[in-house]
Amino acid sequence: MDDRELLTVVMGIVGKEKCLDDCAEVPCGDQIMVVTTDMLHRTTDFVEGMSDWQIGWMSAAVTLSDIASMGAEPKYLLIAVGLDTWQNLAGVMQGAQDCCTKFGAAIIGGDIDRHGELTVVTTGLGLVDKHHLVRRTGAQPGDLVCITGIPGQAQARLDGYVQYEKALFEPQPRVKEGQHLGRVGASAMMDDSDGIALSLYDLVSVNECGFSLDSTKLPVPAGIPANQARELALYGGGDYELIFTLPPQRHPIDGISYTVIGSTISEKVVVIDGRPVEKRGYQHLWE
Amino acid sequence: MDDRELLTVVMGIVGKEKCLDDCAEVPCGDQIMVVTTDMLHRTTDFVEGMSDWQIGWMSAAVTLSDIASMGAEPKYLLIAVGLDTWQNLAGVMQGAQDCCTKFGAAIIGGDIDRHGELTVVTTGLGLVDKHHLVRRTGAQPGDLVCITGIPGQAQARLDGYVQYEKALFEPQPRVKEGQHLGRVGASAMMDDSDGIALSLYDLVSVNECGFSLDSTKLPVPAGIPANQARELALYGGGDYELIFTLPPQRHPIDGISYTVIGSTISEKVVVIDGRPVEKRGYQHLWE
Repeated sequence: MDDRELLTVVMGIVGKEKCLDDCAEVPCGDQIMVVTTDMLHRTTDFVEGMSDWQIGWMSAAVTLSDIASMGAEPKYLLIAVGLDTWQNLAGVMQGAQDCCTKFGAAIIGGDIDRHGELTVVTTGLGLVDKHHLVRRTGAQPGDLVCITGIPGQAQARLDGYVQYEKALFEPQPRVKEGQHLGRVGASAMMDDSDGIALSLYDLVSVNECGFSLDSTKLPVPAGIPANQARELALYGGGDYELIFTLPPQRHPIDGISYTVIGSTISEKVVVIDGRPVEKRGYQHLWE
Repeated sequence: MDDRELLTVVMGIVGKEKCLDDCAEVPCGDQIMVVTTDMLHRTTDFVEGMSDWQIGWMSAAVTLSDIASMGAEPKYLLIAVGLDTWQNLAGVMQGAQDCCTKFGAAIIGGDIDRHGELTVVTTGLGLVDKHHLVRRTGAQPGDLVCITGIPGQAQARLDGYVQYEKALFEPQPRVKEGQHLGRVGASAMMDDSDGIALSLYDLVSVNECGFSLDSTKLPVPAGIPANQARELALYGGGDYELIFTLPPQRHPIDGISYTVIGSTISEKVVVIDGRPVEKRGYQHLWE
């Protein structure tokens, strides 16, 4: 049993349509409010060596990234902190606050709890004009497949490349890019926090098309042997880049940096250089 | 160090005004959206003997209660579940779903995580007309002090009175009552989840008045010796009644059941029969 299989249990209770996107959508005046929640905790998510400030930063960043991936503007964050020792609180809160401030959001509420393991749950609220909202659905055959930044850097640090520590410990959500992509008409979008491969399989599962990547176009972390670098970029977790599809007539987009790594195809598969991409990446496994 | 002292650490970082009410407020069209998040987990909150379904129910109920205490209508719930074993998931989700359905809300999103200890974080969103919003502030000298239901029942179960198990395991948030009280002009309101005593001290800290209770008017759980029953009602935790102040000309209110237990006074104290109420109730203590 993995996370995605477990999600089908939830779909059976709350409805499949509630489980398809990075955020839920609710009407808010003449805009859409997007809402998302993420649980992180010491054993699974906070790597040895992270400071309290970085733990707070990351906790906010992952949620702001979900908002960015809908094309929305992050506005508000709630943070529930379960603490094994109260001395962590100030650092965690300051990190979350600084991340919110950098990306234009504000902490408006939260909860504090005593807990056996440091656990942080952030809930983010963002706003977007309904015409600029981007969902996971919407990709069309012939669209370009694109990604912001250089994927694989967070996993590189996990695999021992210490020069990539900042990518793992202080992820930078693509807030400006997400909104820009919404305004110019990206057709589908999500963040690649579980890796490019799993993200594309998630997109295949909700779209009527597949994805064909070109390995020569895939940006990879520098200073790492080519084969390993490509492995990190395709299958590594912990990045918060945006992976999106774009009608070819919208390309190139001024004002943001991204790379075209392939195109959508009519067959519902994920391939690179014509060969299947493995369906693996960052997932919890359940006994 | 207790919860309320720890909150001052947070106030220093995010601002005191973010920490005063049961919910945060954000503008939403011509209404106010109230938002709140609560972390519950096995060791501290889920009592031995609770079913997975009851754990899910309680997790939703505590958050719906916060929304009710602002006079708002609960609309949406997000639920992040940290599981030590995936077999708990369906029961927890069904309990949360059933609680939401009963009180008019819908689960719209969430997160699933593997965790050493069953941990559930619910975030609730509600809507209220700005003229019907009720905050913790707003109590005036001369107002009546009132409470819904019979306080002390959840604590009675914790103290061994098994006939009160349902009060502890399946709390019923006062959703209808909260909205009704907002419409008819309650001046201040919160829920009494940490007990009446601590709730009134919370209200004293943000209002320019105090509270004088009359012990003969205090409803207490039946079937328990009088002294103990009063102790449970004043200091017991785990209830989700609404404690509110009401301008006397608004009393009585048709359509909901509540008890007048005292009145506000100009001095910033909490007394019962003229003697100080102790400042104690349900709180975590931190080393």
